[in-house]
Amino acid sequence: MKIITEPTRIDWETISERPTQAINNIEGLVNEVFEQVKKEGDAAVSKFTEQFDKVELDAFLVADNAIEKACQRVSEALKKAITLAAANIEIFHNAQKTEKVTVETTQGVKCWQEKRPISSIGLYIPGGTAPLFSTVLMLAIPAKLAGCKEIVLCSPPNANGNINAAILYAAKLCGVTKVYKVGGIQAVAAMTFGTESIPKVSKIFGPGNQFVTLAKQLATKFGVAIDMPAGPSELLVFADKSANAAFVASDLLSQAEHGVDSQVILISTSKEMVKNVALEIQNQLSVLPRKEIASEAILNSKLIYVPTNKEALELINEYAPEHFIVCAEEERFFIENIENAGSVFIGNYTPESAGDYASGTNHTLPTNGFSKAYSGVNLDSFLKSITFQKISKIGLQNIGGAIEIMAEAEGLQAHKNAVSIRLKEIRN
Amino acid sequence: MKIITEPTRIDWETISERPTQAINNIEGLVNEVFEQVKKEGDAAVSKFTEQFDKVELDAFLVADNAIEKACQRVSEALKKAITLAAANIEIFHNAQKTEKVTVETTQGVKCWQEKRPISSIGLYIPGGTAPLFSTVLMLAIPAKLAGCKEIVLCSPPNANGNINAAILYAAKLCGVTKVYKVGGIQAVAAMTFGTESIPKVSKIFGPGNQFVTLAKQLATKFGVAIDMPAGPSELLVFADKSANAAFVASDLLSQAEHGVDSQVILISTSKEMVKNVALEIQNQLSVLPRKEIASEAILNSKLIYVPTNKEALELINEYAPEHFIVCAEEERFFIENIENAGSVFIGNYTPESAGDYASGTNHTLPTNGFSKAYSGVNLDSFLKSITFQKISKIGLQNIGGAIEIMAEAEGLQAHKNAVSIRLKEIRN
Repeated sequence: MKIITEPTRIDWETISERPTQAINNIEGLVNEVFEQVKKEGDAAVSKFTEQFDKVELDAFLVADNAIEKACQRVSEALKKAITLAAANIEIFHNAQKTEKVTVETTQGVKCWQEKRPISSIGLYIPGGTAPLFSTVLMLAIPAKLAGCKEIVLCSPPNANGNINAAILYAAKLCGVTKVYKVGGIQAVAAMTFGTESIPKVSKIFGPGNQFVTLAKQLATKFGVAIDMPAGPSELLVFADKSANAAFVASDLLSQAEHGVDSQVILISTSKEMVKNVALEIQNQLSVLPRKEIASEAILNSKLIYVPTNKEALELINEYAPEHFIVCAEEERFFIENIENAGSVFIGNYTPESAGDYASGTNHTLPTNGFSKAYSGVNLDSFLKSITFQKISKIGLQNIGGAIEIMAEAEGLQAHKNAVSIRLKEIRN
Repeated sequence: MKIITEPTRIDWETISERPTQAINNIEGLVNEVFEQVKKEGDAAVSKFTEQFDKVELDAFLVADNAIEKACQRVSEALKKAITLAAANIEIFHNAQKTEKVTVETTQGVKCWQEKRPISSIGLYIPGGTAPLFSTVLMLAIPAKLAGCKEIVLCSPPNANGNINAAILYAAKLCGVTKVYKVGGIQAVAAMTFGTESIPKVSKIFGPGNQFVTLAKQLATKFGVAIDMPAGPSELLVFADKSANAAFVASDLLSQAEHGVDSQVILISTSKEMVKNVALEIQNQLSVLPRKEIASEAILNSKLIYVPTNKEALELINEYAPEHFIVCAEEERFFIENIENAGSVFIGNYTPESAGDYASGTNHTLPTNGFSKAYSGVNLDSFLKSITFQKISKIGLQNIGGAIEIMAEAEGLQAHKNAVSIRLKEIRN
C-alpha cells in the first residue's frame, strides 16, 4: 500500500496511471489466428482449441440436452439467487427503454429517431477459475430486452470439454440462442468472420484476458463493433470520517481479488480513516482464499489523504474510475458533480459487489480512464438509432433555398440539383 | 452502371460488397507520425504540416480576430442559410435529450442512470476542394447541447495557411472553443496525445480521407474514443413505379459526386423505373461540374430489379445503407421494417441533400454496412451514461443473500465478504 498525503496536481497524473500492459508481443499471434480462422473456418478453430485449451471436441455447439443436464446440476439455492439477480437486472434495463423522438423542425419537415435492435450479437464469457455466469446475465438480459434476434455465446471448454453448468443455466434462463464451446482469440475470430458452425455477428460483448481484448480490438478492423476496450478492473472509494473502515476495506479487497493487476484506490478527507482502512485491510486479507492475488494487488494500491471534498472530486474526475464508492456526509456533492465514472455506489450499505451481481445495474463498465468517453453496457448498447425524415412540398420550399446555397458553397452542384429539380417541378 | 435483374440470394453478398480499400500500405506512415507527435509535440506537428500541407505556420491556433475577419467575408445569403440549417439541427438534437432513469429494483435498492457530457472532444473537418462547414454544424451543435466543455476543431490550412471562412463562421456560431490549423494524421495524433498548444481530447469526431480514418482507428489504441469507423459515402434508393425517375437520378448523382469510390444503388420493383432512371442519369450527368468524379462512381453503381417489396426490404437490410431513400406507395412497410440504415429519406420531396444540410438530422452516419451495429452521430454520441445505486439496510437484507451465493459460486470470497460484514453489522 502506498499512503499518499496531500498530493499536488502534478502528482495526479502518476496517481491516475494504470499498470502498463504489454500487448505488442502478442499481436502477431492474434493476427495469425484471425487469418487462419478466416481462411479455414472450423478446422482452424478446432486446431487452436486443441492447442490452447488442450481438448478435442466433436462439435462446438452445446446441444440442448447437454444444457438441460447441466441445469439439473445447478443447486436450487444458486438458481434462486440467479433468478433474483436476473429480475433486478431486467427491471433496471427495461426502464431504460426510450420512446421514438419526433419533431417538425420546420413546417413540412418532419424528422424522427427510432431505435432498432442489433440483429446478431456475440457474447464472450471467460472460463477458468471464476466461471462468470453473472456476466451472462449482464449481457444476455439487455440483449433480449432490446430484441436482438441472434444471441451467440462463446466460452472456452474445460479439460473435459465442458462449460460450467451455471453459465449454461444462465444462458438458457436469459434467452441465449446458441452456446459454443470455443474460447480465446479463436472464438472472437469465429464470431468476426463466421465459420461453418459459428455465425458471424455484428457486435461482440464481454470481458477476457489480454488475448481476447486484443482480438476484440482487431475484430473492429473487420467491421465488427465491440462493447468497449477492456482493461483490469478498478475501484476508487471516497470515504470521509462518517464511513466504516471495515466496510471500506472489504470493498477494496473485493476488487483486489480480481487479479494482481486490479486497481484499488482510497481517497479520504480523514487521516484517521486512511490509517484505519490500512489496518483493516491487513486484518481481513489474511483469511481470504485468494489472498495471494489480493495481496499483490494491494501492494500497488493507493490510500490518499486530501484536505477537501472539492479536491477529492477533482482527482476522482481526473482518475475516471470504473467503480466509484462514495461514503460521505456530503454524498449529494459527489453525486451531482461526478463527471467520469462507470458506476457509483452510495452509502455504507452499498458494496460494489451488489452491482457486480444483483442490484440491477450492469457490471460491464469502462476501465482504464475510459469512463471519460464511454458508458458502461446498457440497453442502448444493443440498439442503434436510425433517423428518418419526410419532407412535404411546402417543407422543401421552406428549406430548399438554404440547401441550394450551402451545397453550392461546398462545391457540390449535384447536391444542389437534387433540390432544384424538385423545386422547379413544385413551381410548375 | 450495372443493371441486375432478379438477383438470387447468392448474389446478395456481391451486391453488398463495398470497394476494397487498401490500408495496409499506409499503416507504417500513420504509426510513424503518431510516434513523433507523441515524442516531440508541436515540433513534429509543424514538421508534418510543412511536409504534407506545404505551409509554414507561426501558430496553429486561429486567433479570435482572424475568425472575426473571416466571418465578415462570408456572404449574408450563406450566413442566413447556415443559420436556418443550424436552427433545425438544434431543434432535432435538443429533442433527443433524455431524463434520468430511476427504479427501485427491490425494496431498498434504488438504481438510476444519468447522462453526463464528455468533457473534452475534438472535431476533424477536412479541407481541400469541398470545405465541409456543414459538418461543423453537425458535430458542434450537439456537442454544445450535450454540455461538452472543450470543443476543439482541427482542419488543414490551405496553401496560404488559412482555413475556409465558412468553416470558421460555423465554428464561431456553434460554440467551438478552439480552432487549430492542423490537418491529417498529425491533427489526430495531436488530439490523441496533446501537445504544447493542442489539447488532448477524450473523443474524436469527423470524416476524413484514408489517412485520417486510419489515424482515428489508431487513436483508439491510446484510449481515445471515436465517433465511428468511416468509409466512402453511400446511397441506396428504393423506388417503385410511383417514384419520379428524374428525382431519383438526381439523388443518385448527388451521392456519386462525393468521390470515385462512392456507392450508388437503385432497387426497384419496376423494370420501367430502372430503365428511366438509367436514362435520366445520363442526361443529368453531362452538365455536372464534378462529372468526372460522378461518372466514375456511376460506373460502379448498381440498378437492381426485384419482383417484390419484401425481397427489396431483405436485400436493403442485408446491404445496410448509410443513406436510404424510399419512394414507394407502401412506404410504411419500409419504414416499419427497415432494420439497418443510417438515415432514411421518405417520399418524392425528400432528397438526401436535405439531410446533408438542413432538415435537422445528422449527416455523420455509418457507412460500409456498419449501420448493422452503429448509430449515426446523435446527442448521445457526446454523452456517456453513469449508473448509480444506493442500498438501504433493508435493501441489503433483501438482496445480500443472493450476492453471497453468487459470489461464492464464482469463487470470489472477498466479494461475498463485503456483503457478509455489512449483514452481520445490521443483525447486531
